[in-house]
Amino acid sequence: MAYTLKLVGIGSGNPKHLTLEAIEALNSCDAILIPHKGADKDDLAGLRRQICADVLTGDTPIHEFTLPIRDEATTDYRQRVDDWHDAIAAVWLDAMQKALPSGGTVGFLVWGDPSLYDSTLRIADRLTKQTRITTQVIPGITSIQTLTAGHAIPLNRINGPFTITTGRQLRDNGWPNKVDTVVVMLDGACSFRHLDPTGITIYWTAFAGMPNEIRRSGPLSDITQDIIETRAEARKKHGWCMDIYLLRKDD
Amino acid sequence: MAYTLKLVGIGSGNPKHLTLEAIEALNSCDAILIPHKGADKDDLAGLRRQICADVLTGDTPIHEFTLPIRDEATTDYRQRVDDWHDAIAAVWLDAMQKALPSGGTVGFLVWGDPSLYDSTLRIADRLTKQTRITTQVIPGITSIQTLTAGHAIPLNRINGPFTITTGRQLRDNGWPNKVDTVVVMLDGACSFRHLDPTGITIYWTAFAGMPNEIRRSGPLSDITQDIIETRAEARKKHGWCMDIYLLRKDD
Repeated sequence: MAYTLKLVGIGSGNPKHLTLEAIEALNSCDAILIPHKGADKDDLAGLRRQICADVLTGDTPIHEFTLPIRDEATTDYRQRVDDWHDAIAAVWLDAMQKALPSGGTVGFLVWGDPSLYDSTLRIADRLTKQTRITTQVIPGITSIQTLTAGHAIPLNRINGPFTITTGRQLRDNGWPNKVDTVVVMLDGACSFRHLDPTGITIYWTAFAGMPNEIRRSGPLSDITQDIIETRAEARKKHGWCMDIYLLRKDD
Repeated sequence: MAYTLKLVGIGSGNPKHLTLEAIEALNSCDAILIPHKGADKDDLAGLRRQICADVLTGDTPIHEFTLPIRDEATTDYRQRVDDWHDAIAAVWLDAMQKALPSGGTVGFLVWGDPSLYDSTLRIADRLTKQTRITTQVIPGITSIQTLTAGHAIPLNRINGPFTITTGRQLRDNGWPNKVDTVVVMLDGACSFRHLDPTGITIYWTAFAGMPNEIRRSGPLSDITQDIIETRAEARKKHGWCMDIYLLRKDD
């Protein structure tokens, strides 16, 4: 059996982020697989279902499957992630074989873009050890672009470099060297609170691209507490909160 | 007079990169302005015209205008860019006032995304000193996503940070500290050739997203010369060459 995997970036929350290329790719699939990630992220499965309903013009079958959960008992972070990706790959293969027993083109709707802090490419790579796989990536709007568009700000200063990092990295390693701009993703803990806020402006967005998008911006020294409280309230209200922010050192 | 500027990211070269949001935004404009950047980049004005022809459903007027060129006699880089942006802002305002004498919504089609190494937001900001302006940004697929999609690679290692920088920065400052992945843009000079290539893999794309897209990937030590020659040939053939690349240090 041979499968073509189309990993389709669907943008960050706004169904209108879908590109014409993504719509074409989804319509070219023999089946589309939609994962469930657990109750707290049901909004994401719902968004995927909605996008399929909106853009599929034929009767492409949609198969839903349940993702395994990460074994938090594994203490080593990399090992925990590796094991989890192995388990997801096994579930993918099972779902693909059920959906298309003799092979074909399978579509996955990837939140944001498949390149950015996303496991889809790594999981697809694992499948190549078990079956014949051709992987195609269709780029999508990332939450970084959604962040900067919402605040109407540039990512970089003129000709300036910037670093994209995670909350964990910011906590462990502090401000990256030699850049005046840092974008932080995957931060469940408002890690900006551990920085010396002097001379730093923050542009913060929660639920980027979604109807309940929340934005705050200003000197980090002034609005740290506001963001921490706003995030906690949003998390309480929706059961989850995904946020992203850009930090810029003043000239 | 009051103007709303819609800065619409159109993606990087492939007209199918357009999002549903971008199409809706362009159709909501009272006029669309398309700049000419000079003979060597006429392909870009052509792409903008083609996109308008493809997606506009009404009779939105399209106004073309000629961009001033940068005064290379100004030796200071920042000053040269600042002067140039001032000159562009004056031309924009003139074009807007001619297109919509009593104000309205003006659309600009921005290559890639307006946040990323693009002057559109800075020019829009200058206009706020001269007339009432509301700026809206519609995110677009960047050449970074087009690069990684073409090579089907992730941008980051698991939980890893990465830096986006320019050819000039890479030449002047070398490999950025504490990251294993660097994306280089605005490099007309194959600046990767100045790095020690040991243990570095390069993923290089020219004309990302366009029909004539060219890709090379492999150990930097093996393919530096191939890329330099391929780029020179492409530049000779098309009169210009825009390229982007990702460098990753081996584990």
